[in-house]
Amino acid sequence: MTPAPQMKKLKLVSTPRLQERQGTMSTTATEAYVNEAISNLTATLTEKDTELEGSIGAIGGLGDVLWLLLGAYMVFFMQAGFALLEAGGVSAKNTKNILLKNILDACLGGMVWWAVGYPFAYGTGGASPNAFIGGANFFMYKGTTSMNDSDGSAPSGYFYAGWMFQWAFAAAAATIVSGAVAERCNFAAYLIYTTIITAFIYPVVVHWGWSSEGWLSAFKAKAGDDSEEDWSYDPYLGGNGFIDFAGSGIVHMTGGGAALMGAIFLGPRTGRFNADGTVSDLHRGHNAVLQALGVFILWFGWYGFNPVSTLAFSMMDIAARVAVTTTLSACAGGCTTLVIHIACGNVPDVGPALNGILAGLVGITAPCVVVEPWAAAFIGFVAAFVYYGSSQMLLKLKIDDVLEASPVHFFCGAWGCLSVGFFATDIYVNNGVNGAYAADKDNGDSGNYGAFYGGGGEQLGTQIVGVIAIAAWTCGTSALMFFGLSKAGVLRVSAEDEHTGLDDSHHGGSAYDMQSKQVATVKVEA
Amino acid sequence: MTPAPQMKKLKLVSTPRLQERQGTMSTTATEAYVNEAISNLTATLTEKDTELEGSIGAIGGLGDVLWLLLGAYMVFFMQAGFALLEAGGVSAKNTKNILLKNILDACLGGMVWWAVGYPFAYGTGGASPNAFIGGANFFMYKGTTSMNDSDGSAPSGYFYAGWMFQWAFAAAAATIVSGAVAERCNFAAYLIYTTIITAFIYPVVVHWGWSSEGWLSAFKAKAGDDSEEDWSYDPYLGGNGFIDFAGSGIVHMTGGGAALMGAIFLGPRTGRFNADGTVSDLHRGHNAVLQALGVFILWFGWYGFNPVSTLAFSMMDIAARVAVTTTLSACAGGCTTLVIHIACGNVPDVGPALNGILAGLVGITAPCVVVEPWAAAFIGFVAAFVYYGSSQMLLKLKIDDVLEASPVHFFCGAWGCLSVGFFATDIYVNNGVNGAYAADKDNGDSGNYGAFYGGGGEQLGTQIVGVIAIAAWTCGTSALMFFGLSKAGVLRVSAEDEHTGLDDSHHGGSAYDMQSKQVATVKVEA
Amino acid sequence: MTPAPQMKKLKLVSTPRLQERQGTMSTTATEAYVNEAISNLTATLTEKDTELEGSIGAIGGLGDVLWLLLGAYMVFFMQAGFALLEAGGVSAKNTKNILLKNILDACLGGMVWWAVGYPFAYGTGGASPNAFIGGANFFMYKGTTSMNDSDGSAPSGYFYAGWMFQWAFAAAAATIVSGAVAERCNFAAYLIYTTIITAFIYPVVVHWGWSSEGWLSAFKAKAGDDSEEDWSYDPYLGGNGFIDFAGSGIVHMTGGGAALMGAIFLGPRTGRFNADGTVSDLHRGHNAVLQALGVFILWFGWYGFNPVSTLAFSMMDIAARVAVTTTLSACAGGCTTLVIHIACGNVPDVGPALNGILAGLVGITAPCVVVEPWAAAFIGFVAAFVYYGSSQMLLKLKIDDVLEASPVHFFCGAWGCLSVGFFATDIYVNNGVNGAYAADKDNGDSGNYGAFYGGGGEQLGTQIVGVIAIAAWTCGTSALMFFGLSKAGVLRVSAEDEHTGLDDSHHGGSAYDMQSKQVATVKVEA
Repeated sequence: MTPAPQMKKLKLVSTPRLQERQGTMSTTATEAYVNEAISNLTATLTEKDTELEGSIGAIGGLGDVLWLLLGAYMVFFMQAGFALLEAGGVSAKNTKNILLKNILDACLGGMVWWAVGYPFAYGTGGASPNAFIGGANFFMYKGTTSMNDSDGSAPSGYFYAGWMFQWAFAAAAATIVSGAVAERCNFAAYLIYTTIITAFIYPVVVHWGWSSEGWLSAFKAKAGDDSEEDWSYDPYLGGNGFIDFAGSGIVHMTGGGAALMGAIFLGPRTGRFNADGTVSDLHRGHNAVLQALGVFILWFGWYGFNPVSTLAFSMMDIAARVAVTTTLSACAGGCTTLVIHIACGNVPDVGPALNGILAGLVGITAPCVVVEPWAAAFIGFVAAFVYYGSSQMLLKLKIDDVLEASPVHFFCGAWGCLSVGFFATDIYVNNGVNGAYAADKDNGDSGNYGAFYGGGGEQLGTQIVGVIAIAAWTCGTSALMFFGLSKAGVLRVSAEDEHTGLDDSHHGGSAYDMQSKQVATVKVEA
Repeated sequence: MTPAPQMKKLKLVSTPRLQERQGTMSTTATEAYVNEAISNLTATLTEKDTELEGSIGAIGGLGDVLWLLLGAYMVFFMQAGFALLEAGGVSAKNTKNILLKNILDACLGGMVWWAVGYPFAYGTGGASPNAFIGGANFFMYKGTTSMNDSDGSAPSGYFYAGWMFQWAFAAAAATIVSGAVAERCNFAAYLIYTTIITAFIYPVVVHWGWSSEGWLSAFKAKAGDDSEEDWSYDPYLGGNGFIDFAGSGIVHMTGGGAALMGAIFLGPRTGRFNADGTVSDLHRGHNAVLQALGVFILWFGWYGFNPVSTLAFSMMDIAARVAVTTTLSACAGGCTTLVIHIACGNVPDVGPALNGILAGLVGITAPCVVVEPWAAAFIGFVAAFVYYGSSQMLLKLKIDDVLEASPVHFFCGAWGCLSVGFFATDIYVNNGVNGAYAADKDNGDSGNYGAFYGGGGEQLGTQIVGVIAIAAWTCGTSALMFFGLSKAGVLRVSAEDEHTGLDDSHHGGSAYDMQSKQVATVKVEA
Repeated sequence: MTPAPQMKKLKLVSTPRLQERQGTMSTTATEAYVNEAISNLTATLTEKDTELEGSIGAIGGLGDVLWLLLGAYMVFFMQAGFALLEAGGVSAKNTKNILLKNILDACLGGMVWWAVGYPFAYGTGGASPNAFIGGANFFMYKGTTSMNDSDGSAPSGYFYAGWMFQWAFAAAAATIVSGAVAERCNFAAYLIYTTIITAFIYPVVVHWGWSSEGWLSAFKAKAGDDSEEDWSYDPYLGGNGFIDFAGSGIVHMTGGGAALMGAIFLGPRTGRFNADGTVSDLHRGHNAVLQALGVFILWFGWYGFNPVSTLAFSMMDIAARVAVTTTLSACAGGCTTLVIHIACGNVPDVGPALNGILAGLVGITAPCVVVEPWAAAFIGFVAAFVYYGSSQMLLKLKIDDVLEASPVHFFCGAWGCLSVGFFATDIYVNNGVNGAYAADKDNGDSGNYGAFYGGGGEQLGTQIVGVIAIAAWTCGTSALMFFGLSKAGVLRVSAEDEHTGLDDSHHGGSAYDMQSKQVATVKVEA
């Protein structure tokens, strides 16, 4: 139980009696006497107030950690959502394969993130701080220098909670890929690519966009300015840097870009496209319930992803607005995609509604903190078209992205980043991204906001730079990686194994055994 | 990171030296000098204390928003619980249909709630404030007057968080219906009825029971009294108004009443009742695992539904008691229903235990804050009988409520509202419903509580009025609506489509495809 | 909404004018006058500061309750995880049976925990306080003495929240057993054993290890010392008592030990072991998706289990470190087990990865608060071997623990307890277990910590005593219980029922009905 603060009691401050005799004091002596008494009291009060302020500040700090932990738990739980969404979207014969990938994205991802991922992303202040990649805190070494924390250098609760939050994000970024390369990617290739993404490709983007050193970052600290009291941001780009609040670009474009490259280099599943270029109807997800539950879990987890990206208990009011914009975009995305699907001559199916919700969620992830509710609904509305259009485009190009990971995450992620340039409001840019310190920003260029509101084109330009940079880095490095794996002959399973299914050929048998009664029957009767 | 509060430091308050000479002060001058010094110091201290109190108050306010957001997330997640419970409880051939309804209850519900639902429910202070329906804040317009918040009129974090919480409630109320009308309701009819419920039927009940203007409301503000400092409640009915803390009546009776009307106007599923009036065994849920997981998720979400209905961080101690009463009623409901089921000559099946848990949860939702733990267990015990009896009654009446939505939500909801009249304790009515402001209630009639404790019949009478009013409104408007849909010929699918299953006939094929391996085999070998 | 604190405003403290005449004051009178003014002001300020400190302390207390409630919800949700993990791991024909057991472990468990479980565990200060078992608060009677709380003796929010948290733990401990005895345990026997575990076996262990009176407890209060201000811990054993922070021993060894005894006394499933002693391949889980989702939910819930075991908002920084150690051990356990499985000549299957994660989680549960991140990863690494080895051992011994509940919970739980003796750091033992009050510990023996760090063998010895005591108590009482049930002939279902499956033979039919379309077809066409 949290103890009541045990602060010193105010003591009666009695000024020592200087003179015991019956005479009178001079005016000066009287004034001095009074002032000394007041001064003594004031000193005590100042000490007292410092204690009270410290107690209040400590509660805020504990609230920060609580907020980050809850966010980390919710974003971690998204891993279950991805697993179900992907499992439901593949053939029954490849279920265990996709489950194992999602499990390992958390487990193996955790090990890699601990070792090098987090250090590359946020390990600032290392030997050679730079705008490209971090380089400190490997294996949380900072915290374990003495193996016993006796030197007082242990990481803070805020560090640990932040690590948790970022680990969950890294797992999400990595696991987006598995949906695109499902049903024909070799398990060994998976182990290699997911390690490289978590260890290097994703951390570099995070360093660019979210660390205090990154060249794109809206949170780049003013050089030589580490003290909290005098904190300010001084981005390289524009007045505000690249605004990607919770990661439409940094997380979703990165995961989605790698997914797109994976799908391209793997080639389509056997029989996916007919000779005449049309799409075959052979490959369907095997369980819509899993898909729906997966999306509900992802939506739930997104309330950790976006609102908790405020990273501070003191920004809770802003977090509530973020929750609302996130909700409206998701709702608009789901409804709009279903309408588009029907308008294109189809029946109301579950899949488009689910992917439309995700499209809306991915789209609002960058702008969630800088846009008004109506704009959030509009962003979700547009995201539905971006998703639907890019999905059709991939089919035309005969790119087989099984879970439509790149339409949802890459293309809608890009739209989300760009939408900031149109719909960010002036006041929200200051309050939301730059937080309480906006007033300290001394680059004389804080006036950039959405073009729609008359904020000019500079923010939009910055967003375009960010989108191009992330797309180029992610697709470039991923293409190199998947090309290498392909050349090494380990990228794709054999046609026979693909036909049999990965569960039987690689993972010890089917995920399902509904016939156990019959099997048992045979045995017992024998 | 939340910054430490940056308050002004106490300054040494030195009173200016009035006299530099060596003489002496008069007594009056001395007193004046001392008093001025004290007065100066006191003024500084008062300013300081105001700052400290402000900081402490701000933390409480941030805690409110956090609490509401967490509750909103958990209640939203109940949507997944409803989806699974309902999917598991219908035939496999209607799975996608029921999933899509639950998905849209969140998505379409969000759009409708944003546009008109919330405004009708809580949009108080509009042009013509009244006890029947609200009328302000359409599309959150209040917050976007200037499209840029530059006039400082942006909604508070508390507003946004409350909107989130209430949106999740609205989605729950609407989605209750889909379980009752499952397996034969037309999709177009669904779109119409769910929109009407979310836009009008449910918001009106919320306005009645929870807004500061409603005629049933326990939270009706004293006329002309908007200042927080002088807040008090002045309900129209009895001393306390209709006590329905988290919505046994307002949410569950509303959803359950509409569900009942839907089931009646649709008529039973084909073959549900035999010629001799007995129930056929043809229609069973297709997956008990989905049902069980659904109920676990609903139970989990109920810990947002009930405890977070305290709406204030400062009422956390009360919230903990609410969590306990919620738990004991759920446990008692589940155990009792299973015992009843076995006592009626059946084997211990999963379904009754699950619905018994829900019966206990629905029953405790109104009284959770005003009853003691033992009474909570008793309320769950009685709820089991209410559920089981009403469920049997519906079958006798040949009303086919597929998921038993009306026994669980409508009848147990009514019992929950009535139980307040029996078991509400005096002290909890004051602490729980009227909160910290109970002392300010100036209607001289705060003494109403449960008849069991000798609190007289007035509260029970008020509860009866509330139950009748909600039942009449909900069943009346729903009956009209379903009657209209029926007359228009859009309410029910064709017998052929019902036989085929809605997934194949309306939603693009089955939710399941466990045979993909075989299909692929044929293709590849061809 | 939480109201702003309504504290008294500082009043201008004006000392009454004693003398209105023009004369002068004596020095003594001046001093007295000044001192009285200062003294008056100081008194007012002291009152004010007490109010401010009270407000700050109250927020901390509300934060405690919030933290415990959130933890309770998350741990309760683990019940869904257990249900899915176990359902997926048994034959389809026994699904409803295992679901019902998990449902009742929450429902029946709640009733039992309310009646006698919690009182035996934490009902301290009863008629005869002792180190073996508690004896107060039956049916929360303390809180309902007057049936109306009018005597002010109502339990606090912290009590209610703590009850919730502990109820969820109790349900977890009980439900571990059902996995081991699955597919052949009689339902009546289940009802008896789960009641005995929740009512007696588990509460006794909790009393030993976590209450303020227990003989193993690290939290044993100094005799005759109830005041908060002068709190200190004075364990019977070693300097620190048995350190089992979140229950590797108290929860998992207890559940796992009973599971082991159940599996032994029931004997293996029919056909599980071949005549030559090898394991048959007949019995496989029927759904890997349910298993994977179950483990994701359990992992999610574990973030309530471990970090929230800090029990205090003020220990949030420590909770963040606990989240990190929990994560690293889970990740290491999952990866390592998969590697071991492959190294033993198997393909990469989902099951070992999932159980490896659980092994890591169980292992870190005791030491999570006293070890560094690197040690957490190492503990998970070792847990993988403990799990894998003990699992193989059971098969060699022809003990059929269906879900491997005892390898995961009993053996890895023991390893977790022992690991404290090796890897607990000095500073974390003081900060984490003994909390803010460590400095007050006056037994002159606070210096025990992990042997690896040179902390000597005393803590390890204490851990060994604890492990042996818990194993002896749990296995002893469970063996007696299962022996009795076996002798009474109610422990195991008939071979015929086992063959048919428990769902058909005991629970009203299969959990699944995927063929409803065909059934309906026959009916309608008839």
